[in-house]
Amino acid sequence: MVYNFNAGPSILPKEVFEEVSRGILDFNGTGLSILEIGHRTPLFQGVLDEAIATAKELMKLDADHEVLFLHGGATTQFFQIPMNLVNEGQTAAYLDCGTWGKKAIKEAKLYGHVEVVASSKDKNYTYIPKGYTIPRDAAYFHYTTNNTIEGTEMFAIPETDVPLVADMSSDILSRVTDFNKHALIYAGAQKNIGAAGVTMVVLRKDILGKVNRAMPGMLDYREHIAAGSMLNTPPVFAIYVCMLTLRWLKNLGGIPAIEAVNTKKADLLYSTLDSLPIFRPTVVKEDRSKMNAVFVMDDPALEKEFQDLCKAEGMYGVKGHRSVGGFRVSLYNALPLSSVEVLTQLMTQFAHKKA
Amino acid sequence: MVYNFNAGPSILPKEVFEEVSRGILDFNGTGLSILEIGHRTPLFQGVLDEAIATAKELMKLDADHEVLFLHGGATTQFFQIPMNLVNEGQTAAYLDCGTWGKKAIKEAKLYGHVEVVASSKDKNYTYIPKGYTIPRDAAYFHYTTNNTIEGTEMFAIPETDVPLVADMSSDILSRVTDFNKHALIYAGAQKNIGAAGVTMVVLRKDILGKVNRAMPGMLDYREHIAAGSMLNTPPVFAIYVCMLTLRWLKNLGGIPAIEAVNTKKADLLYSTLDSLPIFRPTVVKEDRSKMNAVFVMDDPALEKEFQDLCKAEGMYGVKGHRSVGGFRVSLYNALPLSSVEVLTQLMTQFAHKKA
Repeated sequence: MVYNFNAGPSILPKEVFEEVSRGILDFNGTGLSILEIGHRTPLFQGVLDEAIATAKELMKLDADHEVLFLHGGATTQFFQIPMNLVNEGQTAAYLDCGTWGKKAIKEAKLYGHVEVVASSKDKNYTYIPKGYTIPRDAAYFHYTTNNTIEGTEMFAIPETDVPLVADMSSDILSRVTDFNKHALIYAGAQKNIGAAGVTMVVLRKDILGKVNRAMPGMLDYREHIAAGSMLNTPPVFAIYVCMLTLRWLKNLGGIPAIEAVNTKKADLLYSTLDSLPIFRPTVVKEDRSKMNAVFVMDDPALEKEFQDLCKAEGMYGVKGHRSVGGFRVSLYNALPLSSVEVLTQLMTQFAHKKA
Repeated sequence: MVYNFNAGPSILPKEVFEEVSRGILDFNGTGLSILEIGHRTPLFQGVLDEAIATAKELMKLDADHEVLFLHGGATTQFFQIPMNLVNEGQTAAYLDCGTWGKKAIKEAKLYGHVEVVASSKDKNYTYIPKGYTIPRDAAYFHYTTNNTIEGTEMFAIPETDVPLVADMSSDILSRVTDFNKHALIYAGAQKNIGAAGVTMVVLRKDILGKVNRAMPGMLDYREHIAAGSMLNTPPVFAIYVCMLTLRWLKNLGGIPAIEAVNTKKADLLYSTLDSLPIFRPTVVKEDRSKMNAVFVMDDPALEKEFQDLCKAEGMYGVKGHRSVGGFRVSLYNALPLSSVEVLTQLMTQFAHKKA
């Protein structure tokens, strides 16, 4: 038995693995592997259409929002967004609340004036800044809903008339939120959507066409919309895995159903951590992420001992990001509650033994 | 029984499908799927390292050449190359010999002065231009070794002191050539390297750092080299399929061994076409591609009849690109000779029936 707490690429539903394994040998009874199917065939078009339709349905998107599946990871969005949305000299507003937001800010400076409206860098990004003002003339306001590395999550959508742009890579589809309040949402697929190698971008068309710079076709959202995510050969397989994972979530009851499970998992983990003084969560209570729990011990030798114990028990990924240290436990949609039960039992036993 | 003549995504070796199908359920006995493994684990590092080492070995690359696996498809290279290699006002030389080269030319114009040294557009790209002059002051000379859509292939490497840049998407690893003569080679993986969703870039480091424009980290080759193709979450699965396909080719005897098979397949197909007047290959003899054979019939009703017959016999992909019409048969590395034997027998029977 193995338990996968990896931060991404991360666990996907068992049913998805099983269907993918079959599709690699024989996709839908065609005698062909999903890997050898042309992207301009009805076979693949059906996969892409279902992925888009299911994403729209799960997120309850209105008719103004388009769903794209693009190459390049969320890191490509860090520069593609300002390239498409902000003119030279114009302001783009950013919230600096973690490693990914910081990277996005760096790239945006290549294209416009960046105003950082607030930052939690002063306390190593262990909280979400509040009470800031977004400049009304900003082309957009960019924020990260969940900080995979630091373990914070932003549950409230900022109130503003400025178009909202959100990096939802690590908590998309994990909880009910009003996706339609956003002008643009992006998310690397490798946590809650599907396999690494594709990025979902949800956007409102009316925000496009307002910048006057020339750009390559592959970076122009309008061209991807016009081509229906098939401007060039798409990452066929990664989109196939997304489609199956989205279908799984739909069959499960959608976002409200998975949110209930996610809340149980997070509650169990954090209440265990709070009850055992040997473990110390690093994030302020109200901003604790339900997707990535980060905690440390004060004794590095004990940290090592507990990490080794987890490994010996078949637990993968119970380790902090190389930039933070300590522990990180990822609780994405596909992680069953039983995995958290096993982990928290181990924590409790360990803490009692060391007490 | 099915026969896959798709132009890409296209057939891969059966052994690769079988191993991938197992790796989706249990990667190397870890109990984890290849889809849920973190990219910064020794497990995935081993996959990436083997893919790079095997590519270097198969291509006999010298120590100056780096191998990268990048997101975005060859279409991203169309603009990433000029962005990294040509300064504003400087000249980049291009050969216009097909659909892909034309697209590359369009994107290069965003970054420098493009000089098209020769074109075969006058005859619908049915031949490879020869006898042109490459300007000695060009930053680089770009050409396409194989034109997937038009069915031409360029077997000679241009003689020039200008750095050579080649789009080898559809014939890389299919025949012996001197890869080291090139400053940069790129190839979408979805024909002879592996699965769609990753692009191999081979380049000499000394060509970098000569332009003075600012660019996003994701588009700067130097950053990808420094990060060992792990600047962000790589397309883990697509690289895994590449590794297995490269391993398969190595075990088979490498490029010389597969070239012998590829030549047999192409010889059989073209000699059949030449012997049956009902079929008319569109490309001049000396420039016929060994990877993509393009031909037509003069009677559209017969074309339709033969296409339907192929479908009925379990043959996929025997159809010209939507921009060209007629027929295209792709003969990539993983296509067995037996598939060509079955197809040419069908052609012969059909031609005799209609004679």
